[in-house]
Amino acid sequence: MKIDWADRVATMEDPAVKMMLKITQRTDVISFAGGLPSAKTFPVDRLAAAYAAVLKEQGGAALQYSLAEGYPPLRELLAQRLERSGIACKPENIVITSGSQQAIDFIGRLLLNPGDLIAVENPAYLAALQPFRSYQASFLPVPMDNDGMDVDALARQLKKARPKFIYVNPTFQNPTGITLSLERRRRLGELAASREILLLEDNPYGELRFGGADIPPIKSLADSDWAMYTGTFSKVIAPGLRVGWFVAHPEIAAKVTAAKQLNDILTNSLTQRALHRFLTDTDLDAHIATIIGQYRRQRDAMLAALAAYFPGNVSWTQPEGGMFIWVTLPPGLDARDLLTKAIDEAKVAFVPGTPFHTDGGGHNTFRLSFANTGEEEIASGIARLGALLARHM
Amino acid sequence: MKIDWADRVATMEDPAVKMMLKITQRTDVISFAGGLPSAKTFPVDRLAAAYAAVLKEQGGAALQYSLAEGYPPLRELLAQRLERSGIACKPENIVITSGSQQAIDFIGRLLLNPGDLIAVENPAYLAALQPFRSYQASFLPVPMDNDGMDVDALARQLKKARPKFIYVNPTFQNPTGITLSLERRRRLGELAASREILLLEDNPYGELRFGGADIPPIKSLADSDWAMYTGTFSKVIAPGLRVGWFVAHPEIAAKVTAAKQLNDILTNSLTQRALHRFLTDTDLDAHIATIIGQYRRQRDAMLAALAAYFPGNVSWTQPEGGMFIWVTLPPGLDARDLLTKAIDEAKVAFVPGTPFHTDGGGHNTFRLSFANTGEEEIASGIARLGALLARHM
Repeated sequence: MKIDWADRVATMEDPAVKMMLKITQRTDVISFAGGLPSAKTFPVDRLAAAYAAVLKEQGGAALQYSLAEGYPPLRELLAQRLERSGIACKPENIVITSGSQQAIDFIGRLLLNPGDLIAVENPAYLAALQPFRSYQASFLPVPMDNDGMDVDALARQLKKARPKFIYVNPTFQNPTGITLSLERRRRLGELAASREILLLEDNPYGELRFGGADIPPIKSLADSDWAMYTGTFSKVIAPGLRVGWFVAHPEIAAKVTAAKQLNDILTNSLTQRALHRFLTDTDLDAHIATIIGQYRRQRDAMLAALAAYFPGNVSWTQPEGGMFIWVTLPPGLDARDLLTKAIDEAKVAFVPGTPFHTDGGGHNTFRLSFANTGEEEIASGIARLGALLARHM
Repeated sequence: MKIDWADRVATMEDPAVKMMLKITQRTDVISFAGGLPSAKTFPVDRLAAAYAAVLKEQGGAALQYSLAEGYPPLRELLAQRLERSGIACKPENIVITSGSQQAIDFIGRLLLNPGDLIAVENPAYLAALQPFRSYQASFLPVPMDNDGMDVDALARQLKKARPKFIYVNPTFQNPTGITLSLERRRRLGELAASREILLLEDNPYGELRFGGADIPPIKSLADSDWAMYTGTFSKVIAPGLRVGWFVAHPEIAAKVTAAKQLNDILTNSLTQRALHRFLTDTDLDAHIATIIGQYRRQRDAMLAALAAYFPGNVSWTQPEGGMFIWVTLPPGLDARDLLTKAIDEAKVAFVPGTPFHTDGGGHNTFRLSFANTGEEEIASGIARLGALLARHM
């Protein structure tokens, strides 16, 4: 059978990435590879109560087709919650999506013609690069340092190239754990507005801050129709529910709603209502505080183990929240080779940095997640990895 | 704000269709317009029990990220159920999607380059035409009669044009209620296989048969890798759960899985597990029998009212199942004009046939749904519509 796929299929999957992610899923290893939150944090009982209450009180109405843009009371409640983080918005600005992943994919679908350019952090979130690439876009990689995307560098790049939009994951970034500074957020928002370039701020981890002062979202600083925003319940409630949200000017929100209608009509309406009920009955901030407590202990365990067991010429980031630490090996080493050895010899998995880079670089980098592994396993896994590094470097 | 949308956005929405669907949603009318199943049929209590059992027994695991292709036990169970309808398949052939709508959209994404052709029934299911059009495809409209798509006509058309795939909704079709005959199913499957053209069989209503003999799916007749199939729980359990399935050769299923990963990672994992639990604990066939009982009474009420109240020069289909009856007015009349009058004067809504047609025709046709309106309202709504027709024809 020879199938004549659409041209976009050729850019849809990278077999090397697929293979790499597959080997990180072996079950006999301590895995720091996944992007999974800790299932221990999921509020199982309170979600069960919310589903039961909605089905008992609302019956069939909770199971019917409904508005593509999402359940109005949930959008109302989200608007109030976003207001607290400084994002002034109304329900008409909000579209409920099946995770923020879907909002990212829809923005690609709505904006990208083959050959279009997107400005991204280098490294950037892999699962955003993949759908953008599938719409046959190219990337304008913007360098990063410990304060996030180098906005001066972006400003210089914008003199030579005009991206369709800027995609940024500014808070506890995936993969680096780095947070864009307040000063740079202001400048990035102004730059996008003054150049009339759309900006998509992806903020799945922002509420998981363990230390340091809160920094407002770019969307709250940029009083601009060019700033778009996406968030999710995946990291603060549970990812299997697949509920996220997209926030933008009503004209853009309407287009995302139209894409939603074409793709899956609406996000699971029972789950939207159950989440609304859960949020009404539960103190989400108190729940998030327990997640933060657990993740902070695990981050501290990982940072301590890295300091204790990793060779002196290896460096890593010091994230103030989120799920990830980013490791940089001496130049010349390739984390992809190391991964094979780590799995075979040390029974430890991580994600090599190469696929997060759109400039072909990052061979000597890798991502560690501390979210889904207990403190003791973190200590022993990092010790094993450190010993492996010492042997092979 | 002037946004430079992707080229595909221009073909994404038809403002006239949007406006037409909007006016059918007025709440002061008897609506035969929607495609909604009856919420009275939704098994609320048994779904509540299934959600409660899954959360109690499986805890956080039911709320975690999981496989993009879907929950293995649900795919196993679907494979067994599909086997009963003659479709031999294994879990590896099945991808769980967020409704069959999402499978339809992914097939467009995976196969369509701008300018590609798709062979469709004329008229065809509007919500499939829309995503296909958004991938800048064109249509090859194949005429229909009371036995469904005219496969001879398609064979003649295929001598002059090569579509990327054939999309067909052969059982109790949306919008006409017509069922493709067994003889034509065989020939359509053979035609697709011999010409090496993919065929997508969309079967959301097939289990809702009120009369006549069962006719097997094309996928079960065509022993061919070129036949793809999609189904859904939307019409036999509840649409708000957004769970459907796609069945095809593993190579195609893998591509749909990759599209799923890019778009929303996976379908709501709690809901997949709850549906698996529901299907294990419930006799779905007995549940479907109660839906069939209700819909049959409503279809009979509508057919009786049409015979009693509609003018003699109006004709309509006699569906043996599903949700829809298709009405044809004398040539020269336009159902779009009639809709405005029907809503204002008769307080009754339906969907004009024009947008279901890809040949620019069908002005004198419209779709009635009998699924979501009780027998008495059906009788009074059709009486009012019949009186209006008599006044204006």
